[in-house]
Amino acid sequence: MLNKARLLTPGPTAIPDEVRLALAQPMIHHRKAAFHSLMADCQEKLQTLFGTKQPVLPLSCSGTGAMTAAVYSLFAPGDKVLVIDAGKFGERWGNICRARGLEVVTLSVEWGLAASPEDVEQMLHDEPGIKGVFVQLSETSTGVLHPVEDIAAKVAGTDALLIVDGVSGVSLSPCPMDAWGIDCLVTGSQKGLMLPPGMAFLALSERAWERCLPDPGCFYFNLPAERKKLEKGETNFTSPVNLIQGLKVSLDMLLQDGLEAHFHKQWALTQLVRRSVRAMGLNPFVTRNYAWGLTSVLIPDGIDGIKVVKDCADNHGVFLAGGQDFLKGRIVRLAHMGWADWSDLLAGLYALQRSIIDNGGFSGSHDFLEQGMASYRAAMEGETGKEPLDPHD
Amino acid sequence: MLNKARLLTPGPTAIPDEVRLALAQPMIHHRKAAFHSLMADCQEKLQTLFGTKQPVLPLSCSGTGAMTAAVYSLFAPGDKVLVIDAGKFGERWGNICRARGLEVVTLSVEWGLAASPEDVEQMLHDEPGIKGVFVQLSETSTGVLHPVEDIAAKVAGTDALLIVDGVSGVSLSPCPMDAWGIDCLVTGSQKGLMLPPGMAFLALSERAWERCLPDPGCFYFNLPAERKKLEKGETNFTSPVNLIQGLKVSLDMLLQDGLEAHFHKQWALTQLVRRSVRAMGLNPFVTRNYAWGLTSVLIPDGIDGIKVVKDCADNHGVFLAGGQDFLKGRIVRLAHMGWADWSDLLAGLYALQRSIIDNGGFSGSHDFLEQGMASYRAAMEGETGKEPLDPHD
Repeated sequence: MLNKARLLTPGPTAIPDEVRLALAQPMIHHRKAAFHSLMADCQEKLQTLFGTKQPVLPLSCSGTGAMTAAVYSLFAPGDKVLVIDAGKFGERWGNICRARGLEVVTLSVEWGLAASPEDVEQMLHDEPGIKGVFVQLSETSTGVLHPVEDIAAKVAGTDALLIVDGVSGVSLSPCPMDAWGIDCLVTGSQKGLMLPPGMAFLALSERAWERCLPDPGCFYFNLPAERKKLEKGETNFTSPVNLIQGLKVSLDMLLQDGLEAHFHKQWALTQLVRRSVRAMGLNPFVTRNYAWGLTSVLIPDGIDGIKVVKDCADNHGVFLAGGQDFLKGRIVRLAHMGWADWSDLLAGLYALQRSIIDNGGFSGSHDFLEQGMASYRAAMEGETGKEPLDPHD
Repeated sequence: MLNKARLLTPGPTAIPDEVRLALAQPMIHHRKAAFHSLMADCQEKLQTLFGTKQPVLPLSCSGTGAMTAAVYSLFAPGDKVLVIDAGKFGERWGNICRARGLEVVTLSVEWGLAASPEDVEQMLHDEPGIKGVFVQLSETSTGVLHPVEDIAAKVAGTDALLIVDGVSGVSLSPCPMDAWGIDCLVTGSQKGLMLPPGMAFLALSERAWERCLPDPGCFYFNLPAERKKLEKGETNFTSPVNLIQGLKVSLDMLLQDGLEAHFHKQWALTQLVRRSVRAMGLNPFVTRNYAWGLTSVLIPDGIDGIKVVKDCADNHGVFLAGGQDFLKGRIVRLAHMGWADWSDLLAGLYALQRSIIDNGGFSGSHDFLEQGMASYRAAMEGETGKEPLDPHD
């Protein structure tokens, strides 16, 4: 009771009260009229969110389930694919593809950097016969935003499908699937969508539907059967009913002022966090091509980032995430996804600063409030964009 | 507002208020201490429910996902298996096994009847090299309860694993996994467990763990990785957090008076429904080996069962299920699973009777209340058992 709990982890994220109460509604049957109309309502909004005219399939699984569905439905063992690997989730694409028996060519990108569209173009040229290119919109382990639009332009002229993991990115920064030419876009419920984990979404382009294998590689993930059932407002197997009940409310909230306004807020929150971090004398781990929902902060040498994360939770009620793999202890990840506003982030930033001080990191505190909020206000009034507002970037 | 909605479908089922409010709790992170202790608490109770000392893995998928996990983890393409097919869900075992590339031998059982353990024994004898036997505890499409204990005794002496789909059965009638010698037991969240759909559970015997393939047939379903994470109170990928929050409450409710008392209630409710149906001049579709959570009722010739189901919903707020496949329109399925008591069933039975009358089925109504409730009271005072109380059976 001393502190309210503030969940600023990159999934699951905090859920609005309105959505939580929707999750507690009485159960309804997934093959009856009331559910069908709920699904129809959500479908239209999901298409707006994905920027697509294609059906957006809700799947009863985590985000990794939807990634599995994409790989096992679109590619057969032996197919050659290109995986852009710039962190834990790029690595996951590779692992799923190898589990499916694909021939994986990897474009390894240093953690903290984004993939170069020219490198993708070069690899597609050097490695003939590539049938698919896999990338993240936002790589959650580092906080990088890959230039998916530009990568899509390079893939467009080839025979390869572009498959984008938007689990940490969809609804946080623009990713209009049809306009950019993405062939498969997946996301999960538990990040920008402000829902509990347990549901994922997947959409395919027309040419991806044509390439979808007739026999699913994994029985549970049968995309043509899902599409057919979706036409009736149903899912192939039992639907995650209460998550769909919550989804209706969360989509209404996200789209309330239009998707652009929501992205604008996400952009401004990112500026708030990045400027504040610099005001403290710290550095964001990602200096260019940063995500709009997650900021990774480099922890000064000699300070244990794991202890900082623990102190934020224990002493301030603020839940952050540490680094993964070789970044363990070296970065702290602060998410600003969906149901987070400037005040939540000020709390998170204060906790971060105080915990670093408590662990011997600074001689004294610095006032990030003024600079951070000035950056936020300027960003809210200005234009969103790919180029960083922060002159240090 | 004229009628309260009463969900008497065989999944999803009604959810207690206590559980619904638990589902609406604030989100917590799935890799932090609060979640670990929640998982530990649930694990102990899940083991009680499954009657096993083995870990019970929570999976983020529907029941069919857990069935897929079992098939793809325990068997490799080309393996020969025996599928007991007595309805839609027996058929599903066959479809999953064929999708996995297994050689499927089918023991076809007439819909409405249970498998004979002697037939299983005979097939295991006639078809050498069978590596797995697949069966339902309760076949949801008919309401049959297969004699799993006796089938397990026949499988025990062989090299085959026994895999049981307990989606419609676990927590509704006894199925102690270790005592009966079941090698793999799966269930779902949305029936006897009184939760929304979206989570499934799977446990393996020691010998099944030894046979578990090192490389998962489907990346998303990696049972050894799930077991390893469960030791820390986690799941392999992102956990369905709010369903686990609800699970804690639903398990507490189910085990409040002991599992036996809960089964006893399920047994008595089954007697209430069966006697009432006979008092109306109708017949249960299953006459022997009936499930304790679901009663299928034969609709008199000339009456459209689909219309009856619709009228129950439209006129009385009672949601029942119709028949599937060739039983469409011929039976109505009334579920008494988990969060249903005698009063809910009286409402369901009244709606059923009234709708049949309205569709020209009877010349007049019959008083089922007295007989049905007498049967219920007698069953609550007597012993539960395999042999039917109802002398007509």
